[in-house]
Amino acid sequence: MVLKVYGPTYASPKRVLVCLIEKEIEFETVHVDLFKGENKEPEFLKLQPFGVLPVIQDGDYTLYESRAIIRYYAEKYKDQGTELLGKTIEERGLVEQWLEVEAHNFQPPIYNLVINVLFAPLLGAPSDSKVIEESDQKLEKVLDIYEDRLSKTKYLAGDFFSLADLSHLPFGHYLVNQTGRGNLVRERKHVSAWWDDISNRPAWKKVLELYKYPV
Amino acid sequence: MVLKVYGPTYASPKRVLVCLIEKEIEFETVHVDLFKGENKEPEFLKLQPFGVLPVIQDGDYTLYESRAIIRYYAEKYKDQGTELLGKTIEERGLVEQWLEVEAHNFQPPIYNLVINVLFAPLLGAPSDSKVIEESDQKLEKVLDIYEDRLSKTKYLAGDFFSLADLSHLPFGHYLVNQTGRGNLVRERKHVSAWWDDISNRPAWKKVLELYKYPV
Repeated sequence: MVLKVYGPTYASPKRVLVCLIEKEIEFETVHVDLFKGENKEPEFLKLQPFGVLPVIQDGDYTLYESRAIIRYYAEKYKDQGTELLGKTIEERGLVEQWLEVEAHNFQPPIYNLVINVLFAPLLGAPSDSKVIEESDQKLEKVLDIYEDRLSKTKYLAGDFFSLADLSHLPFGHYLVNQTGRGNLVRERKHVSAWWDDISNRPAWKKVLELYKYPV
Repeated sequence: MVLKVYGPTYASPKRVLVCLIEKEIEFETVHVDLFKGENKEPEFLKLQPFGVLPVIQDGDYTLYESRAIIRYYAEKYKDQGTELLGKTIEERGLVEQWLEVEAHNFQPPIYNLVINVLFAPLLGAPSDSKVIEESDQKLEKVLDIYEDRLSKTKYLAGDFFSLADLSHLPFGHYLVNQTGRGNLVRERKHVSAWWDDISNRPAWKKVLELYKYPV
């Protein structure tokens, strides 16, 4: 039974999709419509009790949380496709560090911008201008630290592309292309070059071509 | 040069300390006083540019983000002390899944309670009753899912203690012992037995004995 990835439309599942393509792993996708609440239906909650995306089914193995799934496949298929965990335990440590930074510092303010700048107007919901302002300020600080790091190494964990960079693609795409904040990246020379590098990888282009974002 | 862990007083660094003790790794600690802003001083920012704890120095290797550090040591010393990553790649996948759940679902509402219930009154700052209410509601839902999981397996990732359980100790301690919310755990039979099991491990008792919480 081929690997199934639930919810390819949305940002976090795209973290899994780009990883699987980099690792040359076959998969199929199962559409889940968050706007219809399909993620809260009993059948879905059996797979993912928190009612969020993504989740994968691989034979009788079920796994959720996008960053857990990408670690699993990067390790399981270590010698196939792109090496994404570094070559040594020390390199992997730095991959883990920057994966955590992405999860705790980079993604949350962009998520808030996506909700308030992109989705709220579409759904006729109010935008929270205080949240928008705070998110912009946080991102400026975070990207200043990235600029410093990327002036020393080509990628976040060192001079090798890894899960740490890959994990930035889905929300980086929102930041640069859909929230009117490309300037935050373009004003920073090394961040800008890094973004061009990672977002032009064939695997990510294929994800964008095959699986449109909902907005 | 012996491994140095910065900031042993605080909750997130305790995630690292309990892991090192489980793995029988020698270390020393370096005090950092957040209340005096020592984490924002230039010397500290050279080690940890985001100005948060913990960070470790191990010879010339520096690493931050507590969950990255515990993964690094659990892997580097795989055959020493307690096995914390599971025995197979599939078990490790589930360890990663529950580490992510801890980071994204368990810790954030407890962090908000610690700030608003515990620290705000001490610092004479206002408590946000809406945040407190929302955090309590989130925790109820999260712990219901834990209760279901722990009725099927002894620990979160399966029938083996792992980083996934260990990672809950520092903020679980706040929840049970210092925010007046022990009932959230005690009302759930399997969560309660699990908490007693993991919080009575000698490594965690040693952390509590050696490194008091700031509050």
